[in-house]
Amino acid sequence: MHVLIVYAHPERRSLNGALNDFMVQHLRRAGHVVEVSDLYAMGWKPALDGADRLDRDPQARFDPALDSRAAYQGGTQSADIALEQDKLRRADALILQFPLWWFSMPAILKGWVERVFANGFGYGVGEHSDQRWGDRYGEGNLAGKRAMLVVTAGGWESHYGPRGINGPIEDLLFPIQHGVLFYPGFEVMPPHVVYRTSRMDADKFAATTEALGRRLDTLWSAGPLPFRRQNGGDYAIPALTLREEIAPGERGYAVHLARGA
Amino acid sequence: MHVLIVYAHPERRSLNGALNDFMVQHLRRAGHVVEVSDLYAMGWKPALDGADRLDRDPQARFDPALDSRAAYQGGTQSADIALEQDKLRRADALILQFPLWWFSMPAILKGWVERVFANGFGYGVGEHSDQRWGDRYGEGNLAGKRAMLVVTAGGWESHYGPRGINGPIEDLLFPIQHGVLFYPGFEVMPPHVVYRTSRMDADKFAATTEALGRRLDTLWSAGPLPFRRQNGGDYAIPALTLREEIAPGERGYAVHLARGA
Repeated sequence: MHVLIVYAHPERRSLNGALNDFMVQHLRRAGHVVEVSDLYAMGWKPALDGADRLDRDPQARFDPALDSRAAYQGGTQSADIALEQDKLRRADALILQFPLWWFSMPAILKGWVERVFANGFGYGVGEHSDQRWGDRYGEGNLAGKRAMLVVTAGGWESHYGPRGINGPIEDLLFPIQHGVLFYPGFEVMPPHVVYRTSRMDADKFAATTEALGRRLDTLWSAGPLPFRRQNGGDYAIPALTLREEIAPGERGYAVHLARGA
Repeated sequence: MHVLIVYAHPERRSLNGALNDFMVQHLRRAGHVVEVSDLYAMGWKPALDGADRLDRDPQARFDPALDSRAAYQGGTQSADIALEQDKLRRADALILQFPLWWFSMPAILKGWVERVFANGFGYGVGEHSDQRWGDRYGEGNLAGKRAMLVVTAGGWESHYGPRGINGPIEDLLFPIQHGVLFYPGFEVMPPHVVYRTSRMDADKFAATTEALGRRLDTLWSAGPLPFRRQNGGDYAIPALTLREEIAPGERGYAVHLARGA
């Protein structure tokens, strides 16, 4: 298989750098092809702007969605964007690896999503009708591929638990796992989160890589998060609300997971 | 009063640009002092990295938290960071204004948070003991100030409702409102969200600015979101889990709001 790891940490000699090295070696030893987009090392441009469309009239009003679509369809995207899209096309799995900064991904990785998931590629795909609202949330150009988050956090696991002060980790990651990855079609594996990173020693690092290695070994065989497909009948269109008879009376992120169905 | 608006849209001739102009005029007419950090116009550097500490040994291992702390305490922060911190110090209220991109803030604004909320300023403040876990979540250097999000979204309001496919808007914004704003001490006002921005016409724009103006008029008098203070007795320390007798059996973001207390 072919794995793309998009990695966002400014220092290679960090825990994240060591985990990145481990993943690359572990996957290659298992016979997989691995590519790494080391965003800091690449000097990735984080901010989406008019320069992302090479043939744009500099006097024209810039529209993030429409200019992205024109550049994608016209082959006039900035070269760095097109290269990352090519990496995604040849990947069977995408791993986003990052430290949790302010309860989300680092800005440089957010900017990778904003620029690479262009209109026509990552969103704005498919037709709208009374049966479907575009190819998204389980359908789209990245359908058939798997994705997983590998995240480090300075806080304790209890701080991210069901009643932890930071909010449950699965809720903090929902906008990424559901909104960024499931949206363009990925099947999303449960995340791998390493907590309390300031207390890392040799024993904990060994245990951490052993656990991470097991996750990589089952990346193709384990079951993904059972997010509901938008156009599969569970949602009313165009309101895009979960039908009343499904998880009646419940609200929030959890209703978008088909549990024990 | 003194208001800082941090604004993140790449095109002034956009709905967001028009709403930004409206807010500046409306607040100034009411007698307030307004500063705007127009991140795209400023060419704000989004990626936190070693260059943010001016006296860093370029051969040394870069530690995002420790180097940030050393630079903040030693007065060797990059000048753009220190300028934004000064703006925050003189502000009575902070407004973050942005289009919702991939269910969160644009990368350039995330990078403003990461770099400006330095260790010792936005986090890493106060002592840890068995009574308190630093000055955060309701305490900190930005306590006594108010904050509000002004957000535009392309989707429909129902898509962001309690059972909407994108997830409830209040949950999507929780990592920002609670994790970015309440964390360093801000009192957080309910957000102002404008939906379905592609269907904006003169009538809808007039209604939008009227509603937004009312929010600005009550920025000082309306009640903030009732987030629970970390060190106020509601949480067990150091587990930082909500005490069992509060909202017993409940989980998730909502437990961190004191409802009807």
